[in-house]
Amino acid sequence: MPRVSAGHLAARREQILDGARACFSRYGYEGATVRRLEEATGLSRGAIFHHFGDKDSLFLELARQDSRRMAQVVADQGLVQVMRDVLADAALGGTGISWLGTRLEISRRLRTDPAFRADWEKHSRELTEAVQGRLERQRQAGVVRPDVPIPVLTRYLELAFEGLISHLAMGLPADDLRSALDVVESSVRRG
Amino acid sequence: MPRVSAGHLAARREQILDGARACFSRYGYEGATVRRLEEATGLSRGAIFHHFGDKDSLFLELARQDSRRMAQVVADQGLVQVMRDVLADAALGGTGISWLGTRLEISRRLRTDPAFRADWEKHSRELTEAVQGRLERQRQAGVVRPDVPIPVLTRYLELAFEGLISHLAMGLPADDLRSALDVVESSVRRG
Repeated sequence: MPRVSAGHLAARREQILDGARACFSRYGYEGATVRRLEEATGLSRGAIFHHFGDKDSLFLELARQDSRRMAQVVADQGLVQVMRDVLADAALGGTGISWLGTRLEISRRLRTDPAFRADWEKHSRELTEAVQGRLERQRQAGVVRPDVPIPVLTRYLELAFEGLISHLAMGLPADDLRSALDVVESSVRRG
Repeated sequence: MPRVSAGHLAARREQILDGARACFSRYGYEGATVRRLEEATGLSRGAIFHHFGDKDSLFLELARQDSRRMAQVVADQGLVQVMRDVLADAALGGTGISWLGTRLEISRRLRTDPAFRADWEKHSRELTEAVQGRLERQRQAGVVRPDVPIPVLTRYLELAFEGLISHLAMGLPADDLRSALDVVESSVRRG
């Protein structure tokens, strides 16, 4: 095997993850065939699976990366902003940086696979903690309504988020969703 | 075949539907085997499928019945009350009159089966119209906030409903959900 620098290796992994994200987002987990993953990444199956073992490992690495990034955006901008991003992305047909592709498959596994649910708990909790931490800081800044406990507002925002993912997954009408998110946002704010 | 009265026939169909509802609710669609349907209804498979043809027809009849009843409760008491019923039922382990069992399978089919989605559209619309009609009457009665259009509030309530179903389906923590529903309810109300 040729020697490659650590930087080159990391860049190659990112190239694969970015292509795979677009591919899962567009075709769903089942529809993201090896041939389509090759097209989306511009690399051969040999190169892809040299870095990630198999399709499931590739998906899980992507899902973990998405989950960490989502927790970061939540910490910086709040879960409502993540919902707006997901919605804007869905309106564009799911191209660009999309969390919807991995979220749908994650939701499906959480519903149907108790072992996965236990494995994934750490990531679910990470997201919950990011939402909670953000709400606490926003409350201290006087932005969040003072009359409802933070864990309740956290659960409320998570319900809206799960509803949005489910709604988009079921292909239900997307009109008025942006305005519905305004209602979600205003209902956690003071006054 | 022995002659039976129309009343007897209707009672027998109800007996089957009630038993099947409990069975689907407890075991899910896949887990509701013919043997379990026999146990739950107290009838033989011959009697069950004499009335409903096959398991899928039985399920769809139940789903349609649940959907009509749900639209009725929505018209009378609002979608938030349906959510409270679903939550109370889930807390009891899904026994009693449960919409969760059929809703989960309906959600799954809506996500994965475009033909079913087209078939089911009438029922989705019926529920949406029930939510909208209720909100309009409540607004005339001065209960609903006047500053957000009714279609937006309708979509908002549907998002919360879908989020609740999804949340329960994923087996995520149920604490604080009742209080989160209070936030949903208060955010559609006036001041």
